[in-house]
Amino acid sequence: MHAAVTALLGRRVRLGLVGGGGASLIGPVHRVAARFDDCFETVAGVLSSKPERALAEAQALGLPRGYADMATMIAEEAKRPDGIDAVAIMTPNDSHQLYAEMALAAGLDVICDKPLTNDLESALGLVETARSRGLVFCLTHNYSGYPMVREARSAVAENELGPLRVATVSYVQGSLGTRVEDKPEAMLERTRWRLDPARGGLSHVMGDIGTHAHQLLSFVTGRKVEAVLADVGAAMPDRVTHDTASVILRLEGGVRGVLFATKAATGAENAMSLEVYGEAGGLHWAQASANELRVMRNARPAEIRTRGLPTLHEYSRRAARIPPGHPEAFFEAFANIYSDFALLVAARRAGKPADPFAALAPTAADGADGLAFIEACLDSTASGTWAKVRQF
Amino acid sequence: MHAAVTALLGRRVRLGLVGGGGASLIGPVHRVAARFDDCFETVAGVLSSKPERALAEAQALGLPRGYADMATMIAEEAKRPDGIDAVAIMTPNDSHQLYAEMALAAGLDVICDKPLTNDLESALGLVETARSRGLVFCLTHNYSGYPMVREARSAVAENELGPLRVATVSYVQGSLGTRVEDKPEAMLERTRWRLDPARGGLSHVMGDIGTHAHQLLSFVTGRKVEAVLADVGAAMPDRVTHDTASVILRLEGGVRGVLFATKAATGAENAMSLEVYGEAGGLHWAQASANELRVMRNARPAEIRTRGLPTLHEYSRRAARIPPGHPEAFFEAFANIYSDFALLVAARRAGKPADPFAALAPTAADGADGLAFIEACLDSTASGTWAKVRQF
Amino acid sequence: MHAAVTALLGRRVRLGLVGGGGASLIGPVHRVAARFDDCFETVAGVLSSKPERALAEAQALGLPRGYADMATMIAEEAKRPDGIDAVAIMTPNDSHQLYAEMALAAGLDVICDKPLTNDLESALGLVETARSRGLVFCLTHNYSGYPMVREARSAVAENELGPLRVATVSYVQGSLGTRVEDKPEAMLERTRWRLDPARGGLSHVMGDIGTHAHQLLSFVTGRKVEAVLADVGAAMPDRVTHDTASVILRLEGGVRGVLFATKAATGAENAMSLEVYGEAGGLHWAQASANELRVMRNARPAEIRTRGLPTLHEYSRRAARIPPGHPEAFFEAFANIYSDFALLVAARRAGKPADPFAALAPTAADGADGLAFIEACLDSTASGTWAKVRQF
Amino acid sequence: MHAAVTALLGRRVRLGLVGGGGASLIGPVHRVAARFDDCFETVAGVLSSKPERALAEAQALGLPRGYADMATMIAEEAKRPDGIDAVAIMTPNDSHQLYAEMALAAGLDVICDKPLTNDLESALGLVETARSRGLVFCLTHNYSGYPMVREARSAVAENELGPLRVATVSYVQGSLGTRVEDKPEAMLERTRWRLDPARGGLSHVMGDIGTHAHQLLSFVTGRKVEAVLADVGAAMPDRVTHDTASVILRLEGGVRGVLFATKAATGAENAMSLEVYGEAGGLHWAQASANELRVMRNARPAEIRTRGLPTLHEYSRRAARIPPGHPEAFFEAFANIYSDFALLVAARRAGKPADPFAALAPTAADGADGLAFIEACLDSTASGTWAKVRQF
Repeated sequence: MHAAVTALLGRRVRLGLVGGGGASLIGPVHRVAARFDDCFETVAGVLSSKPERALAEAQALGLPRGYADMATMIAEEAKRPDGIDAVAIMTPNDSHQLYAEMALAAGLDVICDKPLTNDLESALGLVETARSRGLVFCLTHNYSGYPMVREARSAVAENELGPLRVATVSYVQGSLGTRVEDKPEAMLERTRWRLDPARGGLSHVMGDIGTHAHQLLSFVTGRKVEAVLADVGAAMPDRVTHDTASVILRLEGGVRGVLFATKAATGAENAMSLEVYGEAGGLHWAQASANELRVMRNARPAEIRTRGLPTLHEYSRRAARIPPGHPEAFFEAFANIYSDFALLVAARRAGKPADPFAALAPTAADGADGLAFIEACLDSTASGTWAKVRQF
Repeated sequence: MHAAVTALLGRRVRLGLVGGGGASLIGPVHRVAARFDDCFETVAGVLSSKPERALAEAQALGLPRGYADMATMIAEEAKRPDGIDAVAIMTPNDSHQLYAEMALAAGLDVICDKPLTNDLESALGLVETARSRGLVFCLTHNYSGYPMVREARSAVAENELGPLRVATVSYVQGSLGTRVEDKPEAMLERTRWRLDPARGGLSHVMGDIGTHAHQLLSFVTGRKVEAVLADVGAAMPDRVTHDTASVILRLEGGVRGVLFATKAATGAENAMSLEVYGEAGGLHWAQASANELRVMRNARPAEIRTRGLPTLHEYSRRAARIPPGHPEAFFEAFANIYSDFALLVAARRAGKPADPFAALAPTAADGADGLAFIEACLDSTASGTWAKVRQF
Repeated sequence: MHAAVTALLGRRVRLGLVGGGGASLIGPVHRVAARFDDCFETVAGVLSSKPERALAEAQALGLPRGYADMATMIAEEAKRPDGIDAVAIMTPNDSHQLYAEMALAAGLDVICDKPLTNDLESALGLVETARSRGLVFCLTHNYSGYPMVREARSAVAENELGPLRVATVSYVQGSLGTRVEDKPEAMLERTRWRLDPARGGLSHVMGDIGTHAHQLLSFVTGRKVEAVLADVGAAMPDRVTHDTASVILRLEGGVRGVLFATKAATGAENAMSLEVYGEAGGLHWAQASANELRVMRNARPAEIRTRGLPTLHEYSRRAARIPPGHPEAFFEAFANIYSDFALLVAARRAGKPADPFAALAPTAADGADGLAFIEACLDSTASGTWAKVRQF
Repeated sequence: MHAAVTALLGRRVRLGLVGGGGASLIGPVHRVAARFDDCFETVAGVLSSKPERALAEAQALGLPRGYADMATMIAEEAKRPDGIDAVAIMTPNDSHQLYAEMALAAGLDVICDKPLTNDLESALGLVETARSRGLVFCLTHNYSGYPMVREARSAVAENELGPLRVATVSYVQGSLGTRVEDKPEAMLERTRWRLDPARGGLSHVMGDIGTHAHQLLSFVTGRKVEAVLADVGAAMPDRVTHDTASVILRLEGGVRGVLFATKAATGAENAMSLEVYGEAGGLHWAQASANELRVMRNARPAEIRTRGLPTLHEYSRRAARIPPGHPEAFFEAFANIYSDFALLVAARRAGKPADPFAALAPTAADGADGLAFIEACLDSTASGTWAKVRQF
């Protein structure tokens, strides 16, 4: 990946960080992902919304250029011959729109944590800004970076399963399995803002993990959700925050299925799994055995495809770094999204066509789809009946 | 079990078979289950609705007394000092009611394959007949015979999980993953009647596997489903038979969850799994690893309880025959329901209180609950909104 | 199976039990196995070496004819027109030879628990007696009754793996993981005699589980062990009983590998697994996932063959009773050996050629191979160098 | 880790690469591992033994300072105020000694791929050089970097298993399952040198994977192998290269067990697993499910410890980066060794005591143990009887 990026750009992509300091869980993940394949130089950053802390944290991380705020970073970097090409945004959800619009306005490519924003209209605004300015906008729906998820997608795309009929996806966590809101003083800041609807979004479970499940399903099936029958709310009595979402799905082509996401499953550890069935076969992937994809056929042995096998589809072979039996996992999948982003940025700046494999990286449009899905689920919950998902 | 039955009755229970001949899949399972723990003498039977075939099949099986039809069996056995105590009904669904009512009218205890009947009213009639006559009526919801399912039930009952919040159950098969109805001549008779709504019931997927999933969930959680938001129908285009059911659940106590059942999952092999979460912990059981129950806790290692361990709850210890590491499976679970039935019959005939452990066996009332659940799911599907489940 | 046996014999095989009463673990397993497929009438038995207890236990089991001792059973049954055809021996190891010779002398076919005897010479004697009298002699090496073990054997036999190169087998238990011998009064009788070299054999770990592992390996590979480099003894300090055996193997054709068996693995639950590799592929089977066989190929996805699939080899399809996804397990595998035995007995008595599928049942000759293997392992342990395994 | 290193050193450790260019499999792994936690600046390198290629590859990787050979790198870097602190050696085995001695002589700390050398004497020489010069020397036995392997080590060290009795380790690969030597022209250079005894060492299977298995076993048990009964050679007929090693072990304290390593297992994918049993319990770890450690107890449920749980031992908690359910894998484990190395180097240069957690990193002495183990295995194979392992 390093070689492909430098072949296009003559150097690595210069990246500025926005957020991810302090006790952020995802900040260190983004930074590892950016280093992983040596496609980026992380040269600048605004690590906190508090100017002093922002400078201190940048120094602690050894960033060449720490800034007190986003506007300063954009302005100062623009003056430099070696200024940043792109920013990585990993702030609380309610600030994604502002920072992303600022970056796009400055001609910077953007990679942003999910959900894209907290409401559909601002999401569509970002889609339009990125499109009209011809800039790259990637969204870190990192589960689609797993090689075997990409194998699943290729298997569907190349019609190995025949016409799709049934699909289910589930994402089960336990972080809200107990009444954490009873002890707000014990909450980490990263939990606090997520549970605040003004900052984390109207529906915590949907924004935090439901959109991941939705994107995984759409990514693999290549089909959009058209309508939902949903029950989103709190399994915990007297809880305001949404912790559980049960959603009956109708996908393009009449595919039936269910999306289930909960954070109230005490003891569950981020369990994510997907099943897709067509007339010719089915597939099953789960993050807990991320290096495998089970491919099923009618009345025949199932096949266990393992990451790195030479017989896999090119999209998944490209996403693996080492041979089967040497497992890759969460960071590697995240890094694949970053490396895709680097390739897209390098190609855009070089005026070359982008590597088609990098086009797998989730975009702002995927983020808008996710927000339309959330809206439909909340509408359906409110009305108690089917709701259509807005399409773009 | 043999010893407990003979201690009460002075002998084994005398059983007459109703159905299960020909290419029946479940007939041989019932017969093995009845032999397993040596609690029954299978002495009579009506093996087919066609009199000649009924006699020939009884002879082929080596049954001491084969009969041409149900009425004859009942009449002739009533005359004998060593006549049957009970019947096991494993005919197509539409005849369960008739045969069960005939047996109950003759004072015979009944064990019957599921679903109890094809409609709620006749199911309630059977419940009432059995109750008013004081007879035993068991339904072979065999999955509740698995020792580790009984362990799960005990874990919930003894409040190991704390107040329940979330529960999901899924039953995924592939037998209708292809368009088998295009070749009716290739269908086995046992498939043909199941797909005929007049014989197999209004909703094939619900009657065949959905009720198993529903009973498993109710059995383990000890809670009834109160309301559903459902989408039951055919994932396969232009198919009349229901092959897929997606059901959002609200259980007693506000428990949220999903039941998903499909027969259109090409390549899936009867995959049944259950997850239940409360504030203090969760559990996961899957038929594919039936000898294990995963018990989860917040921020602590999960525990793998294995069938036969001395530390298990008594209900599950009693349901295991051999030590851990010597796996038991489908037939053993089925046999547990039969042995429960034998104990209940022997106790009733001996005028003794029934062994409380045998009371785990599913009853006609469970069958009625299943039909009420089906009705509510179909109502919800038709209306596109929530439906209440009738309670008894 | 019932049908095949009665077609040959006009009835089921009449079986007499020898041993298996009291707290025997394996006695109930044999009795279930004999009932499973309805190929036997268990009509007589000597349930204990103590005459009074023998009679009482036979009555408690509801056996038609209980006897006080083996000689009486043989004499009385011989007088009856409906006397037993065969005996099932499940007494402590040191009495197998005596009872088996008595039965063979009386013209009875024999099914016997393993190990065949406690020494090679008496084992060879039984092989010769059975051979010279033309009687059936089966040994309950029950693991070879698993359908997927038979699939593994067929895969090797039909050269799916190419020339074999490597094979390992392991059998790990925890029953001697603690110093149980310090509390002899707490031992079950079934443990006590096993740990007594005079009754259980010179090497407990070898006789109890090592021979199972050895037979499984030979059964699947179709190759005999030619030489061993072994370390058999006690992992527990100051223990006389052998609890652990590490054996380096050289099989026919130069196959290299290892057999490891221990009863000193605290917490392990009868974990048995086998791996075989040839130039074209490999296979892996473990009892904990007995319904699956993993078949591996070079640089290609592994294949998960599941019990009951129509694409399996005929030997394994015949050994399955229900479709994939309805798991079968320990009792079903044991029952397969019994049903093989019934077919062999019925064919012999009918003067017909035996069903080739029944010929998979382990024989007295396999038992002699097992004892020769034990002898070689003990020789190697004593000498500290390679020992050849006697071949017959 | 970055923070801990910079706190000691005021900056990151400056690293020079030795080898790992071209089609090297392990080169990119080392480079990712060095970047992962941002503890190193990789500023220099000799990427090939061919000077021109060395320079070209360094440039392609974007290394600030590429050199044509090791002597030049050492000399030039020594002149710079910002010269390298340490080298990472990932050349073919036969050159480890030379490059490591050169680096140590220049006062550079060393991290080196395994095996340490190809013979015990040169290994002991390196141990002595590093010791006498007071330099850090780490060996990338990367499997001991897995958090759950460290948890296993802590469980043993804190006596959770009681006195150890039994241990087995196995490492099974398929790369030599077919006769690759028949097509030498198709071999990658990285395969070619490994199969050449002069470069890859006397026993390919032992040097390549056997030492990993040996180190994993010693690391977790905290016990050295004292004696072996081994059979090392080629399972493939007419093959000179050793592809399979079967080794019966006697560890300190009388622990019995087996080490099995093969590269002739067609279809196997780098399968590594370890079982350790003591009187109070056992544990099982396998790379294929690297985020889990199964801890077993007598007659009680097994416990599944998962990477990242707050209840784990501190050594394993420190080795995890993200919460349970977000799997980490091969690269993360490798990176843990690198980060340990960085901490050791930084502490040494700062004249501070090393973080005790970093002391888990394998050392030159572990490498010497590995070579003594290989020697004993080859001696035992040659003599056909037990060989003692030299201790230091």
